[in-house]
Amino acid sequence: MNSLPNPVSEDKSQDPRTITVLGATGSIGMNVIDLLERNEAQFDVVALTANRNVEQLAELAIRHKAQLAVVADESMYQELKATLEGTSVEAAAGEDALVEAASRPAEITMAAVVGAAGIRPSLEAIKQGNCLALANKECLVAAGELFTAEIKKHGATLLPVDSEHSAVYQSLDEKAMDKIERVILTASGGPFRCKSLEEIRSATRAEALKHPNWEMGQKITIDSATMMNKGLEVIEAFHLFPVSPEEIEVVVHPESIIHGMVEYQDGAVIAQMGSPDMRTPIAYSLAWPRRMHAPSERLDFAKLGKLTFEAPDETRFPALKVAREALISGGNAPTILNGANEVAVEAFLQDRINLLAIAAICAESIARVQSECGGGTPSTLDDVLYIDGAARRVARKLVTEDSFQC
Amino acid sequence: MNSLPNPVSEDKSQDPRTITVLGATGSIGMNVIDLLERNEAQFDVVALTANRNVEQLAELAIRHKAQLAVVADESMYQELKATLEGTSVEAAAGEDALVEAASRPAEITMAAVVGAAGIRPSLEAIKQGNCLALANKECLVAAGELFTAEIKKHGATLLPVDSEHSAVYQSLDEKAMDKIERVILTASGGPFRCKSLEEIRSATRAEALKHPNWEMGQKITIDSATMMNKGLEVIEAFHLFPVSPEEIEVVVHPESIIHGMVEYQDGAVIAQMGSPDMRTPIAYSLAWPRRMHAPSERLDFAKLGKLTFEAPDETRFPALKVAREALISGGNAPTILNGANEVAVEAFLQDRINLLAIAAICAESIARVQSECGGGTPSTLDDVLYIDGAARRVARKLVTEDSFQC
Repeated sequence: MNSLPNPVSEDKSQDPRTITVLGATGSIGMNVIDLLERNEAQFDVVALTANRNVEQLAELAIRHKAQLAVVADESMYQELKATLEGTSVEAAAGEDALVEAASRPAEITMAAVVGAAGIRPSLEAIKQGNCLALANKECLVAAGELFTAEIKKHGATLLPVDSEHSAVYQSLDEKAMDKIERVILTASGGPFRCKSLEEIRSATRAEALKHPNWEMGQKITIDSATMMNKGLEVIEAFHLFPVSPEEIEVVVHPESIIHGMVEYQDGAVIAQMGSPDMRTPIAYSLAWPRRMHAPSERLDFAKLGKLTFEAPDETRFPALKVAREALISGGNAPTILNGANEVAVEAFLQDRINLLAIAAICAESIARVQSECGGGTPSTLDDVLYIDGAARRVARKLVTEDSFQC
Repeated sequence: MNSLPNPVSEDKSQDPRTITVLGATGSIGMNVIDLLERNEAQFDVVALTANRNVEQLAELAIRHKAQLAVVADESMYQELKATLEGTSVEAAAGEDALVEAASRPAEITMAAVVGAAGIRPSLEAIKQGNCLALANKECLVAAGELFTAEIKKHGATLLPVDSEHSAVYQSLDEKAMDKIERVILTASGGPFRCKSLEEIRSATRAEALKHPNWEMGQKITIDSATMMNKGLEVIEAFHLFPVSPEEIEVVVHPESIIHGMVEYQDGAVIAQMGSPDMRTPIAYSLAWPRRMHAPSERLDFAKLGKLTFEAPDETRFPALKVAREALISGGNAPTILNGANEVAVEAFLQDRINLLAIAAICAESIARVQSECGGGTPSTLDDVLYIDGAARRVARKLVTEDSFQC
């Protein structure tokens, strides 16, 4: 029981930390809420927001004594207001209210709104100069340069919540950030890891939604099936960590136990592992720079027996290649990729296009939007939204084209 | 290339660090020398010591412009002095000279002397209050309480060099030292991992010296074959990290890629991996708190294909159980274990006893010495050496007993 190397740090503050959860009723949001409930004394809830799920939002806001509950869909305002009648929780609705919620002082803002809708409130939260726990992919994929510049400008701390990026973050050696040789992101390979190109092409919506390891929302589950998810994560990793695109490697690891790794110049690889339960990386972001208890199942290595690895196959999973090329070409390519992918995934979920078409539509959208708008880096939110809109328009047109149909 | 989470730390000093290597011609010492040669501008050598290998010691001392070269065996003094004639390197010999070498101001002292002979110079080096890179097992196994008390008293930094403990050290989260649930040490399982109890009992010296992954000295290779090595490492881990004996787990991992892990209260397991090359953990201890380049082969996970794990079998590897029991019972049991094990391994290497007898001799030595001397914790070096001597006497008697013969 002799702690030599590092003294146990003092818990300087026993005061609860203030927290806002943007997207409280989604898959990530519900895991955040679960942890808040298990560690009630450690947190004070400022604001909770939801897209349309008014009933659950109101229930959570009341239970957690939030100051403010915001529903993004303005048409639900009356319903939210009525449900919160007679409580101390303030009700608001619409995009501006979401941004206002993000501006309320909170030590931690959990940005768990799905899609491009998450960018504006996340940017607003950054202005506080506190901790932004980022579970929204689009902020870094569609608006990476803008986002990282704002983080720097306001002295905010960005904590990735995604299991892979949280793993890499946890594997960082603060004193050796200039000695990183490689960042390795693991990928489960998704439900089609062992399927042929033809089987992937003819995969149904139901097959694509069966993720082997993780319970997640529909959009990200389809992104896992195409491995676009991993491609987007490579782009995020580039913005999060001091590495070049070539220094970010993807390795397929079907058991999803090792989530991410960092290799240093001495040959050491530091890795973060855990059972596939988002509560572990979420707990890390909530307690940072310390840690807190999470009920995730503990690893039993003898019971696991083995961890396996294989190289990703960009022929069967072209999305990985399209995303990496978008990162390397830079400029607005990642922004276009992100918008086009959202449209294409939506079309796949509506049985309108085949799974392989998603990557093809993304690549073609990048080419068409760039020939129309040029390829410059979007440096303002308006730029980002303009390019995002152009990408969606082009992609919506592409999904109707014969070659991409089911 | 946007480094968000942690700023790249400044290299405050470009000055070379002063270093002394105790045990420069051994297996660890030669790896240290290799790294010093590859990073010449970063280090100034103060003293180099060896047990008997005068020729190599002199050659290294001259090449690295050491101030002092010490040979432990006093009878070799004239030979060393003659070889160093006309150079700027001072020559000395004997145990006191070894201690004097350890007292010469050096920012890092690498304690790589094998066996109980390493304790006194290591204790001397601690008095400097600098970094002690510890590759000697006996300091913590035989003199754990004394050693950790001295470290604390002199404000020294203890950096474990052993691959497993270095891995655990590298997996520590400085801000969450009070949130550790478990420390996991991996074990290759040695050459007899898949052998029956009878095959292990009748194993030859040559079979036991064939380690599947690591190139090491004879003593530690036999300790790996019996898994006593892992048992001793459990005892060291107890002294190094803030965990109870029950929180230290051993898992057999034949590939020796993951070297050690730490599990936290959020379910996260941080691990350090690397190819089985001591230059990685040694480089970590030489460059700490930063990192430096080491030429160890880089990991290629797709090529590795898999990492496997199994529970250790204390029936076939009773040494593991004997060591854990010595740790739990505490007092002088680990000191006796260490001395008896050295004698028993030596007897095995002389084909005098069978491999399974090593653990039995250790257990019996603990019982006999304690019935003679009591079980109190040795609190001075003299206490340690007295108990060590008693253990060796008893063990030497035991190796001649019929039941332990080959």
